[in-house]
Amino acid sequence: MTRVTIWNEFRHEREDEDAAAVYPDGIHETIADGLRNHDGGDGTGRDDATYEIRTATLDEPQHGLTDAVLEETDVLLWWGHEAHDEVSDAVAERVQERVLEGMGLVVLHSGHYSKPFKRLMGTTCSLQYREDGATERLWVVDPGHPIADGLEEYLELPRTEMYGEPFDVPEPDRLVFNSWFEGGEVFRSGCCYRRGNGRIFYFRPGHETYPIYENETVQRVLRNAVDWASPTEGAPRTFGERE
Amino acid sequence: MTRVTIWNEFRHEREDEDAAAVYPDGIHETIADGLRNHDGGDGTGRDDATYEIRTATLDEPQHGLTDAVLEETDVLLWWGHEAHDEVSDAVAERVQERVLEGMGLVVLHSGHYSKPFKRLMGTTCSLQYREDGATERLWVVDPGHPIADGLEEYLELPRTEMYGEPFDVPEPDRLVFNSWFEGGEVFRSGCCYRRGNGRIFYFRPGHETYPIYENETVQRVLRNAVDWASPTEGAPRTFGERE
Amino acid sequence: MTRVTIWNEFRHEREDEDAAAVYPDGIHETIADGLRNHDGGDGTGRDDATYEIRTATLDEPQHGLTDAVLEETDVLLWWGHEAHDEVSDAVAERVQERVLEGMGLVVLHSGHYSKPFKRLMGTTCSLQYREDGATERLWVVDPGHPIADGLEEYLELPRTEMYGEPFDVPEPDRLVFNSWFEGGEVFRSGCCYRRGNGRIFYFRPGHETYPIYENETVQRVLRNAVDWASPTEGAPRTFGERE
Amino acid sequence: MTRVTIWNEFRHEREDEDAAAVYPDGIHETIADGLRNHDGGDGTGRDDATYEIRTATLDEPQHGLTDAVLEETDVLLWWGHEAHDEVSDAVAERVQERVLEGMGLVVLHSGHYSKPFKRLMGTTCSLQYREDGATERLWVVDPGHPIADGLEEYLELPRTEMYGEPFDVPEPDRLVFNSWFEGGEVFRSGCCYRRGNGRIFYFRPGHETYPIYENETVQRVLRNAVDWASPTEGAPRTFGERE
Repeated sequence: MTRVTIWNEFRHEREDEDAAAVYPDGIHETIADGLRNHDGGDGTGRDDATYEIRTATLDEPQHGLTDAVLEETDVLLWWGHEAHDEVSDAVAERVQERVLEGMGLVVLHSGHYSKPFKRLMGTTCSLQYREDGATERLWVVDPGHPIADGLEEYLELPRTEMYGEPFDVPEPDRLVFNSWFEGGEVFRSGCCYRRGNGRIFYFRPGHETYPIYENETVQRVLRNAVDWASPTEGAPRTFGERE
Repeated sequence: MTRVTIWNEFRHEREDEDAAAVYPDGIHETIADGLRNHDGGDGTGRDDATYEIRTATLDEPQHGLTDAVLEETDVLLWWGHEAHDEVSDAVAERVQERVLEGMGLVVLHSGHYSKPFKRLMGTTCSLQYREDGATERLWVVDPGHPIADGLEEYLELPRTEMYGEPFDVPEPDRLVFNSWFEGGEVFRSGCCYRRGNGRIFYFRPGHETYPIYENETVQRVLRNAVDWASPTEGAPRTFGERE
Repeated sequence: MTRVTIWNEFRHEREDEDAAAVYPDGIHETIADGLRNHDGGDGTGRDDATYEIRTATLDEPQHGLTDAVLEETDVLLWWGHEAHDEVSDAVAERVQERVLEGMGLVVLHSGHYSKPFKRLMGTTCSLQYREDGATERLWVVDPGHPIADGLEEYLELPRTEMYGEPFDVPEPDRLVFNSWFEGGEVFRSGCCYRRGNGRIFYFRPGHETYPIYENETVQRVLRNAVDWASPTEGAPRTFGERE
Repeated sequence: MTRVTIWNEFRHEREDEDAAAVYPDGIHETIADGLRNHDGGDGTGRDDATYEIRTATLDEPQHGLTDAVLEETDVLLWWGHEAHDEVSDAVAERVQERVLEGMGLVVLHSGHYSKPFKRLMGTTCSLQYREDGATERLWVVDPGHPIADGLEEYLELPRTEMYGEPFDVPEPDRLVFNSWFEGGEVFRSGCCYRRGNGRIFYFRPGHETYPIYENETVQRVLRNAVDWASPTEGAPRTFGERE
């Protein structure tokens, strides 16, 4: 049983017709459906009891991320875009601390500019972009990685926003996906990091007006990423003065 | 069920009284006992069915590592010391190929100079050493790593051989243990690598005349390492001409 | 010509007799002397024109780190200990930004807890410590690294403070030094990172009441580190919307 | 003064009309011309005395790579394609040993399958390819790296062979270039490694029938790579029994 919290800014879907049309209940609910769409019986061993899912959104008190919620979260997914600045520093710091203690973090698409991700990376997390609805092909460059389990040699998204290099993040511990864009760009689109005891996965796909999270392969990647990011028991993390 | 093959040179124990006294049935059998000593009921979920164990030794035909055996091996453990050169290049290459296809490899102690490890690292794998039976303390430097599951902040071996830096290996993907030696040296004693689809863990402790593999914490590390090194499903590994 | 700014908190030396006795003009001046002690004629090509040195301290306006000063700094060295919290967030952010643009940063000893270093690492940067004045031996684990130029196989400090693992930093890109401590601990004491366009080197030795920065080998390491951390020309760092 | 040896298989250019038309004196001579085309006066400080260049080819005794030649080489460039198997194991091993001692190695294009590179990487170094003469765009993903000095945000080659992922090499220490191909593929096309004391750079561009090495930006990359790969003084590399 992995306790998953899906965090969504949840503004576009309430303010913008196009976003509401694609994600009527919010991006978080579509992501949750994807985790529940667990390909039972395919040998992965996932079933209805694999994930205990809750959601949280920006406009809830403390953005839905109280100490208690984070304490009970094994893996946090994060989608945000237009209101990164409205996330309080206190909550961003709390998320960062929980990751360092071992909570997994899966950062999606425009979440590259979220406060928790920027705090954990230490860099600007800047990139280039173009909203042109062209094709992206995510090549699996690390076919032995568990996040690539069950995938083909690439995953194609027919219409998406382009993200291009340079992507100002630390060199990933492992690069799982490397994206080709129709318009001539490339992007390191699946990046694994360890920080403190926590595992972090940045996954590029996802946009408020393209139905990316309904794609079954994207859903499989998210399930794989949640499993990969789940904390293990580990050893004591003891700091301070020593006798 | 993880299919484990424990490979041992198995010469010291047949030729040398001191080694025979510590490991009368061979180092491989003591390592096998350690895997079977699975702390059932401690929450790790390991039980008698977790590992399917076989052993192989240098003096068997093809050193016991036929294509069939390797094909049925998820994780290979390797202990060798005085007869590295007697391992045939064909078998060393076969082991290397299987690792690149996804088989896990756990290399123990003097196995740093084994043909498969040197082929996979690409370096001399040289180090400094002193056989003085002094104390080693392996500090956990990556307390969130699954290979450290269930350990204390360090693991102490009261009498062992010293290995010192520089250790001529590629920078590890993750360093799990960092050793302190009573005589004044340090050593990166638990090193994780990915090569191709395979996971490789080098673990320093182990010696033919010190009963290192009877230490219960060492046994726990080996179980953790076997679990960590087990292959996952992954994605296709397709090479060659593309249409 | 490398433009170096040495930043020092400069409080211990004005408030504490023991610190004043060791560093009467402040730690920054001793570090500056070490850079000037350039072993001219030893083949390294360093001479009096190699470094243009300035210093800056906490109690100056903007801690001496105005935009103009940082703009004219190729490499910044940082020593702080008891007043990390008094460094303004604005200056810490400015330092971080300049590193990402390419300025080198050499973080010394207790600077592991400084705001700029913690912001750049994204982790707690915590560790264990003991102020016992015992021996540290820094082993060179990467003998081909330019920061190790001209060193022996290890560098010994007869009396120092102990820092022990776990050290909660991201896995270093390269580990240059690995420390042994008389009291039984180890520490990754020379860690290289790249963040954005900037090079960062964390170097453990240094303490307000031990004359560490008068040690000629330590001085050599600092010169090597400054040279290594100096920015290169690079390529454009273009972000944002793309046509 | 950096002592550079350019190794070329030198078969295509003598056997194949198309290759002879592009590289009448052999690929090695065009590469040598590129090093000599040093943009003097552009602020890089390179001039006619920067590189001492020699060449060596497969059909010379010992392939032109005697102990003496390698001993006097700071950086070796390697181009090979159709006759990798004719390189003797002894010479391949000698090259590997020299790299571990500190000699730089720049591996070009189809050299990914050369014996020295495969020995140093430990992997198959396999990839996908298609000889379709379509466009490649090499994006600079690490704009602060010295190998990117003086480049624009990308380097475009209008007609080249495609190399696609997965590229079965260890995760690079630093990825400098990431390639986009017109036909829909991506490739990690500029990969930095350290092995032993040596620096290794794999650079994808180059083909026997496209005039890649006449491209001035490619030439600049090669000069940058040679400078980056040059050995530094370092510290002793002492192995074996320790008192």
